[in-house]
Amino acid sequence: DFMRALDEVHPLFGANDEDLERSFEDGIIKFSPYIDKILKNGRECVNQVRSGETPLLTVLLHGPEESGKTALVAKIATDSEYPFIRMIKPVDLNGMNEIEKIRHLTKIFTDAYKSPLSIIVLDNIELFVDWVPLGPRFSSAVLGAIKGLLRNKGPKGRPLLIFATTTERSALAQMQLRFDYEIPVPNVQTQQELGNIMQESGEFGPEDIQRALGEIHETTQRQEIGVGVARVLRAIKTAKQDPDRVGRFAELISESVAYSPS
Amino acid sequence: DFMRALDEVHPLFGANDEDLERSFEDGIIKFSPYIDKILKNGRECVNQVRSGETPLLTVLLHGPEESGKTALVAKIATDSEYPFIRMIKPVDLNGMNEIEKIRHLTKIFTDAYKSPLSIIVLDNIELFVDWVPLGPRFSSAVLGAIKGLLRNKGPKGRPLLIFATTTERSALAQMQLRFDYEIPVPNVQTQQELGNIMQESGEFGPEDIQRALGEIHETTQRQEIGVGVARVLRAIKTAKQDPDRVGRFAELISESVAYSPS
Amino acid sequence: DFMRALDEVHPLFGANDEDLERSFEDGIIKFSPYIDKILKNGRECVNQVRSGETPLLTVLLHGPEESGKTALVAKIATDSEYPFIRMIKPVDLNGMNEIEKIRHLTKIFTDAYKSPLSIIVLDNIELFVDWVPLGPRFSSAVLGAIKGLLRNKGPKGRPLLIFATTTERSALAQMQLRFDYEIPVPNVQTQQELGNIMQESGEFGPEDIQRALGEIHETTQRQEIGVGVARVLRAIKTAKQDPDRVGRFAELISESVAYSPS
Amino acid sequence: DFMRALDEVHPLFGANDEDLERSFEDGIIKFSPYIDKILKNGRECVNQVRSGETPLLTVLLHGPEESGKTALVAKIATDSEYPFIRMIKPVDLNGMNEIEKIRHLTKIFTDAYKSPLSIIVLDNIELFVDWVPLGPRFSSAVLGAIKGLLRNKGPKGRPLLIFATTTERSALAQMQLRFDYEIPVPNVQTQQELGNIMQESGEFGPEDIQRALGEIHETTQRQEIGVGVARVLRAIKTAKQDPDRVGRFAELISESVAYSPS
Amino acid sequence: DFMRALDEVHPLFGANDEDLERSFEDGIIKFSPYIDKILKNGRECVNQVRSGETPLLTVLLHGPEESGKTALVAKIATDSEYPFIRMIKPVDLNGMNEIEKIRHLTKIFTDAYKSPLSIIVLDNIELFVDWVPLGPRFSSAVLGAIKGLLRNKGPKGRPLLIFATTTERSALAQMQLRFDYEIPVPNVQTQQELGNIMQESGEFGPEDIQRALGEIHETTQRQEIGVGVARVLRAIKTAKQDPDRVGRFAELISESVAYSPS
Amino acid sequence: DFMRALDEVHPLFGANDEDLERSFEDGIIKFSPYIDKILKNGRECVNQVRSGETPLLTVLLHGPEESGKTALVAKIATDSEYPFIRMIKPVDLNGMNEIEKIRHLTKIFTDAYKSPLSIIVLDNIELFVDWVPLGPRFSSAVLGAIKGLLRNKGPKGRPLLIFATTTERSALAQMQLRFDYEIPVPNVQTQQELGNIMQESGEFGPEDIQRALGEIHETTQRQEIGVGVARVLRAIKTAKQDPDRVGRFAELISESVAYSPS
Ligand SMILES: Nc1ncnc2c1ncn2[C@@H]1O[C@H](COP(=O)(O)OP(=O)(O)OP(=O)(O)O)[C@@H](O)[C@H]1O
Ligand SMILES: Nc1ncnc2c1ncn2[C@@H]1O[C@H](COP(=O)(O)OP(=O)(O)OP(=O)(O)O)[C@@H](O)[C@H]1O
Ligand SMILES: Nc1ncnc2c1ncn2[C@@H]1O[C@H](COP(=O)(O)OP(=O)(O)OP(=O)(O)O)[C@@H](O)[C@H]1O
Ligand SMILES: Nc1ncnc2c1ncn2[C@@H]1O[C@H](COP(=O)(O)OP(=O)(O)OP(=O)(O)O)[C@@H](O)[C@H]1O
Ligand SMILES: Nc1ncnc2c1ncn2[C@@H]1O[C@H](COP(=O)(O)OP(=O)(O)OP(=O)(O)O)[C@@H](O)[C@H]1O
Ligand SMILES: Nc1ncnc2c1ncn2[C@@H]1O[C@H](COP(=O)(O)OP(=O)(O)OP(=O)(O)O)[C@@H](O)[C@H]1O
Ligand SMILES: [Mg+2]
Ligand SMILES: [Mg+2]
Ligand SMILES: [Mg+2]
Ligand SMILES: [Mg+2]
Ligand SMILES: [Mg+2]
Ligand SMILES: [Mg+2]
Repeated sequence: DFMRALDEVHPLFGANDEDLERSFEDGIIKFSPYIDKILKNGRECVNQVRSGETPLLTVLLHGPEESGKTALVAKIATDSEYPFIRMIKPVDLNGMNEIEKIRHLTKIFTDAYKSPLSIIVLDNIELFVDWVPLGPRFSSAVLGAIKGLLRNKGPKGRPLLIFATTTERSALAQMQLRFDYEIPVPNVQTQQELGNIMQESGEFGPEDIQRALGEIHETTQRQEIGVGVARVLRAIKTAKQDPDRVGRFAELISESVAYSPS
Repeated sequence: DFMRALDEVHPLFGANDEDLERSFEDGIIKFSPYIDKILKNGRECVNQVRSGETPLLTVLLHGPEESGKTALVAKIATDSEYPFIRMIKPVDLNGMNEIEKIRHLTKIFTDAYKSPLSIIVLDNIELFVDWVPLGPRFSSAVLGAIKGLLRNKGPKGRPLLIFATTTERSALAQMQLRFDYEIPVPNVQTQQELGNIMQESGEFGPEDIQRALGEIHETTQRQEIGVGVARVLRAIKTAKQDPDRVGRFAELISESVAYSPS
Repeated sequence: DFMRALDEVHPLFGANDEDLERSFEDGIIKFSPYIDKILKNGRECVNQVRSGETPLLTVLLHGPEESGKTALVAKIATDSEYPFIRMIKPVDLNGMNEIEKIRHLTKIFTDAYKSPLSIIVLDNIELFVDWVPLGPRFSSAVLGAIKGLLRNKGPKGRPLLIFATTTERSALAQMQLRFDYEIPVPNVQTQQELGNIMQESGEFGPEDIQRALGEIHETTQRQEIGVGVARVLRAIKTAKQDPDRVGRFAELISESVAYSPS
Repeated sequence: DFMRALDEVHPLFGANDEDLERSFEDGIIKFSPYIDKILKNGRECVNQVRSGETPLLTVLLHGPEESGKTALVAKIATDSEYPFIRMIKPVDLNGMNEIEKIRHLTKIFTDAYKSPLSIIVLDNIELFVDWVPLGPRFSSAVLGAIKGLLRNKGPKGRPLLIFATTTERSALAQMQLRFDYEIPVPNVQTQQELGNIMQESGEFGPEDIQRALGEIHETTQRQEIGVGVARVLRAIKTAKQDPDRVGRFAELISESVAYSPS
Repeated sequence: DFMRALDEVHPLFGANDEDLERSFEDGIIKFSPYIDKILKNGRECVNQVRSGETPLLTVLLHGPEESGKTALVAKIATDSEYPFIRMIKPVDLNGMNEIEKIRHLTKIFTDAYKSPLSIIVLDNIELFVDWVPLGPRFSSAVLGAIKGLLRNKGPKGRPLLIFATTTERSALAQMQLRFDYEIPVPNVQTQQELGNIMQESGEFGPEDIQRALGEIHETTQRQEIGVGVARVLRAIKTAKQDPDRVGRFAELISESVAYSPS
Repeated sequence: DFMRALDEVHPLFGANDEDLERSFEDGIIKFSPYIDKILKNGRECVNQVRSGETPLLTVLLHGPEESGKTALVAKIATDSEYPFIRMIKPVDLNGMNEIEKIRHLTKIFTDAYKSPLSIIVLDNIELFVDWVPLGPRFSSAVLGAIKGLLRNKGPKGRPLLIFATTTERSALAQMQLRFDYEIPVPNVQTQQELGNIMQESGEFGPEDIQRALGEIHETTQRQEIGVGVARVLRAIKTAKQDPDRVGRFAELISESVAYSPS
């Protein structure tokens, strides 16, 4: 029967249990007060669903690339200590056709309906429907299925909290994919915030930080940084390969600033 | 044969009999006189079909998101006490291809034709055809099948009442999906109506209500609320997680007002 | 072989023999002299094909929604007393893919070619090709097959008369679906015609009619009614549920008038 | 193997051998000198291919609807007395998918390559590719296959003459479907030509003709007729059902004139 | 395995070995000095690949319809005396789906990789991808496969020379189908060139030629001919069916001139 | 199961191990200082991944046609001496459908995840998704799968370095295919650079070089060359077939300059 048909779809990577933890293996640096606010907001949703009054709550974390959406949602989910937590990434659906994708997603939801308290994370939800702005193109079959799942209450007494992340908030709106609550995740915006990350990384002394910020400002002539925290952390790792760690870091960040929309 | 082929399609969630009741588990709050008018209109359709003179009647409830369409139609259907009542939601078709969707819907109609008196509810009918305004996109095969079913009289002496709900009335018109009668379902519009709901919820005293309405007006500078009843009820639940229940409620409603088209 | 393949496609509703008669179970009210003219035109086509000189004749009845196209064509076909009469509706093709639809239609035509005198009615022909003005969309495979069938003479001595109905005459023209003759079917246009129907229904006395027409004129401020006969008859049934039968009827018709293009 | 695969596709109507003759069962009326010119042109192509110097010749007859294209090409083919003559109509492909259509057409060509002298007629060639101007839409797979067949020389000593008919000459050009020669087929253009057909039909005396032509001119206020010969012949048959044969004929032709582009 | 899968695709006409020779069975008339230049260019490519320094060379012959592209490339290939020469035409892929087409083409290339020296000719390459300018439409799957094959070096020591012909050079550019070298093939352009062909044909004496050229000029009022050599040769054959060979030839060429873009 | 399903897809050319080396069989000529910079950049990425701090690094080499992208990336990969190096070209996917392509690519990545240190090269990555600017067209299914793979970290301790090459950088951006770092690869730009290649080739003496550069400048009237190194090397080979090696070389380069965007 249908349930058995569901079992026949085996994803390639989905069984990987360490996914959630690896999502924030570089830690959560509180480079701005807003980070704590996001975590608190997430905690409130976790508590509200745990209270049992709300059978279904859907929450979207949206923000620019590499701003830390996945790390933050993984942290919130891990901290919830719910008995059922599943993060699904687009690559987990690789090699499935549309119907198989839908059945695989549906299967995960029916698994969740069996747990007394569940979190499902749909990471980069726009890619589940193969969204491409060119056209635009997307799979309306998978989209329709996800809409159905996002509104479907499980059996009584089986509350479910659904998180999704995206860089394409307006695409979701155009596709009429709606959420009960939305939480924006910002880039590293100010020189001060960038300095905080440099310091937390333990790779730079106070003078290094001053020099780097100075050079970045000189090169870019901009006040705003506008770069994702993940990109900053990668730049630190790349700069470590260079004898002039500080100069190289400033160079890499300046390039990223130049590319970001002012 | 074909009938047997129909039996082979098993939906994932469709067997869930408690669906109908759970649709209005937060009750039907009569926050405006219009709510009673909708229920009365629905009752009249129920009676007209029961009288046997009209073999087929199709009725559309349309209105903004979370305005209570599903709850109202579920209430009307439940109150009818017809021997055959089926509510179908888009998620019930998850994991089926177009032909299977059509066969599944057709099967439900042939089941209804066997009952002396039947109601079928197509909840969020625009999603049965995977409608997306971007493009726009929709499944013309499923659309065609639904058009056929909406006009198909069953055998003599088997009257059928079909309800549908939608947020996308103009999309239905563009797709030439027509109904015998249409019933609009409104948002919570006035401060008074919002106050009624607050009071009915039993969570706020008269002064709380005054304060909340005042803050909302101050924040939004609008007379009109324009928020769905379901969203108001969720805001009440969320606000309960906050020490300042009244302030948080006002904040959440104000955000919703800001997003609604003035 | 192919013929056997044809037999394997079983429609869901097509076997329903009472379809034809039920199409005009509310009778044919001669509310305007044009109704008789349509019936006479249809009778002439029936006679011309019966005479054997014309092996194939295709006739389109077109007009606004609910104007009575199906009832009239069903009446003409029934009155013909041909040995083979088949009415096909779009819903009869539900659950078939394009190839199956084509084979099913083709099968009906080959059945007709075996009878000495045949009528085939394609009701709402635009829906056989899943026509939707949005796009526009349609199935060009089924369209091509129908074009082929509409031009295909059967074996010698097997004349065939094909009727089709549509609300979408210009769509058919755009899709180059052509007919030998076309018969327009009008709405109820004048107050007089509306009065005739009210009288024929036996539900209203002369004063009721005067009052209703007066109220409709007052409400709509229009001379022209522009409503389909089927809609008028439904309004009568609905009005019967109301204590104020006349007032409610006037109200329902006025609403329909308001929606019709002036 | 592939050849055997080809054999497995059985068309529904294609075996009907009387098709060719029935195409001109109402005769070829020489209502204008141009009719003879078309027949002579066709005969020359037949002779050129018979001479063996030209292994492959493709000829298109194009003209308005019902102008007599099929009748003329069927006459030319029949008169050729070639050992292999096949007329293919779009309906012959009904119920096949694209690949099957291509294989069926290809099979007919390989059959022709086995005969010492062959004619293949593709009647209404634009419909083989499901051409619809709306969009426009067409099957590019079948189109590509036909292009290949139209340019494919068979084995040495197996000359093939291909005729095609169409009402959509400019569509063929847009689809780059090209022919070695093109022969236009005109409508009935002048009063004189229309008179010739009336006379040849044996249904009207000289005074009838005068009266009919007079009435047509009076009604249409046009010099040009612009109606296909097939439509004229049908009008004669329909008029015979009427007591006033002449008046009814004039009426029917006048309607057709009114619809034709001036 | 995959290789065996490749073997299972059998084309309908591809085995026909006489294709290459029949492509220039009317000879190569050197009506202009440019013909020799094309042949010399082709010979140089043949030699360069034979020298072994270039493992893969791709060459496109492009020009108007019937200008002689296929004949010229067939001549060059035949003259090369390479051990492996394959000409593929679009019709060879008739009846295959996209995947089968790709596998068939791929199979031919893997066959070539087994020979010490190979030429593959892709005749009318735009039709391999079902190119139609309307839309435009084309098979991007087959296109992608051909791009892959056109850039794929075989094993060491297995040089391959690929020729392609097309009338749609700009379409190829738009589809980013690129070649190492391009050789344009011209129409018959001048009266002198046309005279040369007439003379070489052996069907016309010097006075015939003068008369025909004079009549053509008079009729067309153009200096430029702009007609493909194949069309000229066909006109000669057709004219031979007419008592007035010269006059008919002039007439046929004049018609072709009139249709060609000035 | 799925893994076994993966094994069933066998590419046609992918097993060819000599691919990588043959990609730079004409050597890497350091015609400009930028070539060394590219190699150094590549080496740094190799080292960074080898250091183990970065589990996944994606790098794009982009530049005009035949500028040497594949040769450079093959050189960098070969020099890395990683235990697992795989270059995938679009032709390796020939004859697979979309799902098979995705499974094949996925299989290669899962193979890489088993090695302690891996490089995967996706050569001409835009063609993996059958990108064609006309439309534009591309396979959104394969695109989605590649996006998933480009962001998917393997198991802990299995760092992976992904290189891709493309001529269509802006297309990748439009399709939102993003990379951690991008390395531009330039054309041969100046007369000096062209002279360097001529000299390195060993086919020209200093005077030959002067003469060729002079003639090119005279013919093109441009300072900039703007031709890919691969095209220059092919021109040298072709020119060797000509008695006037220098003149022919100048001619071929001048043609290429003329075609390049100034
Ligand atoms: N305050 C923070 N918020 C989020 N991530 C942080 C923070 N501080 C450090 N990190 C680290 O930064 C990285 C964030 O990358 P992450 O993949 O979550 O970004 P993302 O927004 O999901 O990117 P993408 O747009 O590619 O999905 C993680 O490695 C995480 O450990
Ligand atoms: N007057 C009312 N009308 C409708 N629902 C009400 C009313 N009063 C309270 N409710 C409650 O509000 C909720 C209405 O939500 P419901 O899902 O029916 O809205 P909806 O319009 O169908 O939303 P959607 O647009 O998402 O389909 C239900 O929980 C119902 O119990
Ligand atoms: N003069 C009349 N002509 C047609 N129908 C009539 C007439 N008088 C009464 N009727 C009744 O009106 C109804 C006509 O509805 P019918 O379904 O034929 O309309 P329709 O034009 O086919 O509608 P649709 O556009 O939905 O296909 C029937 O029930 C018929 O019995
Ligand atoms: N001079 C004529 N030329 C052609 N047909 C004629 C002529 N005289 C009489 N006829 C008759 O007219 C009819 C022509 O119809 P035919 O189907 O050939 O037209 P058509 O152009 O092919 O129409 P369509 O556009 O529908 O394919 C035939 O019945 C034929 O016998
Ligand atoms: N100089 C010439 N060049 C090419 N063909 C010639 C020449 N002289 C004579 N011919 C003859 O002309 C014909 C050329 O036709 P061919 O099919 O090669 O043209 P084509 O350009 O390939 O046409 P198409 O555009 O239809 O593919 C052949 O029959 C060939 O023998
Ligand atoms: N400095 C150089 N950089 C790159 N390639 C060089 C260089 N010097 C010589 N070559 C040679 O030039 C050729 C470069 O061709 P390659 O196929 O790598 O170009 P490409 O940019 O990948 O082309 P395409 O756009 O077709 O993919 C190789 O044969 C290589 O050996
Ligand atoms: Mg993320
Ligand atoms: Mg609802
Ligand atoms: Mg009808
Ligand atoms: Mg015809
Ligand atoms: Mg050719
Ligand atoms: Mg390359």
